[in-house]
Amino acid sequence: MVGTDREIDFYLDFTSPYAYLASTQIDALAEKFGYTVIRRPFLIGATFKTTGRKPLIQHPLVWEYSLHDVQRTARMLGQSINIPVKFPILSVKPGRLFYYFQERDGDQGVAKEFASAVFQAYFVEQKDITDNHVLGQICAAFGLDEADVGEIVKSAGMKVRFKAEVDAAIQRNVFGAPTFIVRNEMFWGVDKLDQLGKWLETGGW
Amino acid sequence: MVGTDREIDFYLDFTSPYAYLASTQIDALAEKFGYTVIRRPFLIGATFKTTGRKPLIQHPLVWEYSLHDVQRTARMLGQSINIPVKFPILSVKPGRLFYYFQERDGDQGVAKEFASAVFQAYFVEQKDITDNHVLGQICAAFGLDEADVGEIVKSAGMKVRFKAEVDAAIQRNVFGAPTFIVRNEMFWGVDKLDQLGKWLETGGW
Repeated sequence: MVGTDREIDFYLDFTSPYAYLASTQIDALAEKFGYTVIRRPFLIGATFKTTGRKPLIQHPLVWEYSLHDVQRTARMLGQSINIPVKFPILSVKPGRLFYYFQERDGDQGVAKEFASAVFQAYFVEQKDITDNHVLGQICAAFGLDEADVGEIVKSAGMKVRFKAEVDAAIQRNVFGAPTFIVRNEMFWGVDKLDQLGKWLETGGW
Repeated sequence: MVGTDREIDFYLDFTSPYAYLASTQIDALAEKFGYTVIRRPFLIGATFKTTGRKPLIQHPLVWEYSLHDVQRTARMLGQSINIPVKFPILSVKPGRLFYYFQERDGDQGVAKEFASAVFQAYFVEQKDITDNHVLGQICAAFGLDEADVGEIVKSAGMKVRFKAEVDAAIQRNVFGAPTFIVRNEMFWGVDKLDQLGKWLETGGW
């Protein structure tokens, strides 16, 4: 599960606005320093048992700040974002679909485009990414229709695979999103992108 | 209580390693863009009732990451830091002393030097900054001895003043340290220094 020397493991949850913002930046940053990004969708909620933490939205003051900060950071990065009415969501379906595409086509092709399309649908177009019809629309570009989506998200194979990925994230002590790991060095949060960039550039300190 | 257009309110708790790291950077950053820093010690613990959050150290996985991240960030900034054995502490005494110096000499002189000396004693020299003898040693440079320290930290005036400052921080929705507020725009965390710098440089976006 652990990346090679020139790989950045990018742990994301499709319900995390900060993971979305990071996803718009990480590929260019990695490429600049000769790294490849391996996306690893997981479920933040599954880590709360381990950490004793709660979703941001359950801490009203922190959440109010975060809503403001998300917009401010998005504008700084030249991105647009809107927190959907249905938020947060349990991102099991897009998670399973991601690994389906990864198994079918590898890390860098369709799986990566699918991840971008899911974030775009949820945080820019405010579509419900837990809905098979919406997921079918997203997957049309990648050769699947709504019926295929329905089968894949219920399939024993993808259930087992996604659970294994979530367990592996917990095993690596991932507790938030976005989290980046390069050569076992962990960086948590979109605000860490600058430090991560320096780490990639220098090889660490 | 609110700063002027060219002031940065810097909310800190003397027990916060991230506030210490930020304190080594913020004055140069502010000066670069023509701002002044107003230090405002408060008690993070007093905000937990409002936010429902807990100290980092009570989230073992997050704390383990933070211990590593504090060292990594310190090295990046050219600072040294050691988490003291007695950690965290209730920073009421240095907080009251800070405002004593601020009342006596203003924001920028002795109060600022005292704040730096307290952080240095705690996070570099690992001294117990809740101990009157240690505080007396720190305050010797500023014209107070251990007996003076003992009187000031027990005085009704400084109790009332520090409590008012903590209440004012809560009123402004401050929930962590370091927090920076400039023209009512809040930035939370040492990782936000770059974004704060861009905000000061551009006037915001």
